[in-house]
Amino acid sequence: MLYVVGLGLGDEKDITVNGLEAVKRCDKVYLEAYTSILGVPKDRLEALYGREVTVADRQFVEQGIDGMLNEALEMDVAFLVVGDAFAATTHSDLVLRARGLGCKVKHIYNASIMNAVAGCGLQLYRFGQAVSIVFFTQTWRPDSFYDRIKENAALGLHTLLLLDIRVKEPSVEALCRGKNEYEPPRFMSCATCARQLMEVEELRGEGVYGPDSMCVAVARMGQDDEVIKSCTLKEMCNVDVGGPLHSMVLVGDTHPLEDDMLLMHRAKESDFLPDDEVPSQYLEDL
Amino acid sequence: MLYVVGLGLGDEKDITVNGLEAVKRCDKVYLEAYTSILGVPKDRLEALYGREVTVADRQFVEQGIDGMLNEALEMDVAFLVVGDAFAATTHSDLVLRARGLGCKVKHIYNASIMNAVAGCGLQLYRFGQAVSIVFFTQTWRPDSFYDRIKENAALGLHTLLLLDIRVKEPSVEALCRGKNEYEPPRFMSCATCARQLMEVEELRGEGVYGPDSMCVAVARMGQDDEVIKSCTLKEMCNVDVGGPLHSMVLVGDTHPLEDDMLLMHRAKESDFLPDDEVPSQYLEDL
Repeated sequence: MLYVVGLGLGDEKDITVNGLEAVKRCDKVYLEAYTSILGVPKDRLEALYGREVTVADRQFVEQGIDGMLNEALEMDVAFLVVGDAFAATTHSDLVLRARGLGCKVKHIYNASIMNAVAGCGLQLYRFGQAVSIVFFTQTWRPDSFYDRIKENAALGLHTLLLLDIRVKEPSVEALCRGKNEYEPPRFMSCATCARQLMEVEELRGEGVYGPDSMCVAVARMGQDDEVIKSCTLKEMCNVDVGGPLHSMVLVGDTHPLEDDMLLMHRAKESDFLPDDEVPSQYLEDL
Repeated sequence: MLYVVGLGLGDEKDITVNGLEAVKRCDKVYLEAYTSILGVPKDRLEALYGREVTVADRQFVEQGIDGMLNEALEMDVAFLVVGDAFAATTHSDLVLRARGLGCKVKHIYNASIMNAVAGCGLQLYRFGQAVSIVFFTQTWRPDSFYDRIKENAALGLHTLLLLDIRVKEPSVEALCRGKNEYEPPRFMSCATCARQLMEVEELRGEGVYGPDSMCVAVARMGQDDEVIKSCTLKEMCNVDVGGPLHSMVLVGDTHPLEDDMLLMHRAKESDFLPDDEVPSQYLEDL
């Protein structure tokens, strides 16, 4: 049996009781660790489970999955995913391959940023499609998210922006020399997201949003130091909401109750940093 | 302190470990029980928590909330919500009132149907706005959901349909006599939802969807007897996926991986019942 277990968003104890019982029954435990990060190091998971945890990085997920599925034909195997396994990142391919091999799959659900974002006070049924924002490089500045935001905005809907995570990216040097060396993991900040959004609006000029558009930064949702700050897009370029993970919401039409929640979370003068002090990304090895 | 704790979707053990530890610390425990239902009776919660659980029905939530918040100023109080507290139903008003009284609030996130629906294999970031479908009566057949589905469909997006739950509805007789008597709790089936959708398409005639539109029934998500069935809207009128809760998805444009998942969940001939044997609703007292 393959247990696909959502870990939730905070620490090792955000697993459900059912999830924990399943993991403790398992002979092998893998942790998917390249599409999100948990706020705690692996050894705290191992201490809670009483099991060794193997980190399944991008290379593993792309190449080692069949080995894991073959194990799951013989014994109980847990595949742990931060948040929920089918929400922000889909693991449908894993389920289909497992079924193809005749391997039973049991999914244990948990919170994902896709629903936890509602903790900021915006109503989930007023969100349109979610979009991903990737780090711009000198040569690659993809802006297709703009069209998705435009579609949502035309309907007055909120847009959840999922910010880039770069884990186990080969360094340029490593690529040149054929070595297995990686860049340090890095995570986009809301400030960088806001700057990229402003740049694309200037280029496209369709007025889908602007400097005064309201947005919400949600950082480390579900962790003890969770931060929620609402402010304008221009202000967001100078907001520091601390370490990863960050997500952001571009706010659509609001209900008075949503306005009250945004007001409760309104950023203060002290939340804004000078341009040269705003972290554009976070380097953190978790 | 007020702990607002999501219980997840299945049984009493779908609470997170952090959630369980918080509830065990609390002096009073309330269960919000009119916007959703858990698959298990209250005494199983009480056995796990070692605490008495007070059911907070509609009347309580509308009239007794301030009493609970005043308690939370003096002691630790848990307010339990099936799924997650801010997802399908928002409890923002509770948070705002608590803050107004100077009461600290801690939110413990969990899975909600709003993200767990992705377990059917449709990608969550391809969903537009979610809609609620209420039981039609002789005189009240609201069809504003049709416009929301139309907006989603125009963008090729999936629509999550949240089906009506009637708990603690006063009976007509009780209303006439001023008594506190209630109808038995009832829950809409996917078959009834499909019939109502067909009726509205016939009336409105804009071709937003039709008898051949693909849809997915998800029943008792996260419970051991979870059922996922994909079929056409016409077929859905005759599907029986068992007891509550049901939700439904109207499928938009699909990715090949989504097609594979829908195929895996394709309803079989044996899933369809004759017209007169399809339950239009479920009466269940949980």
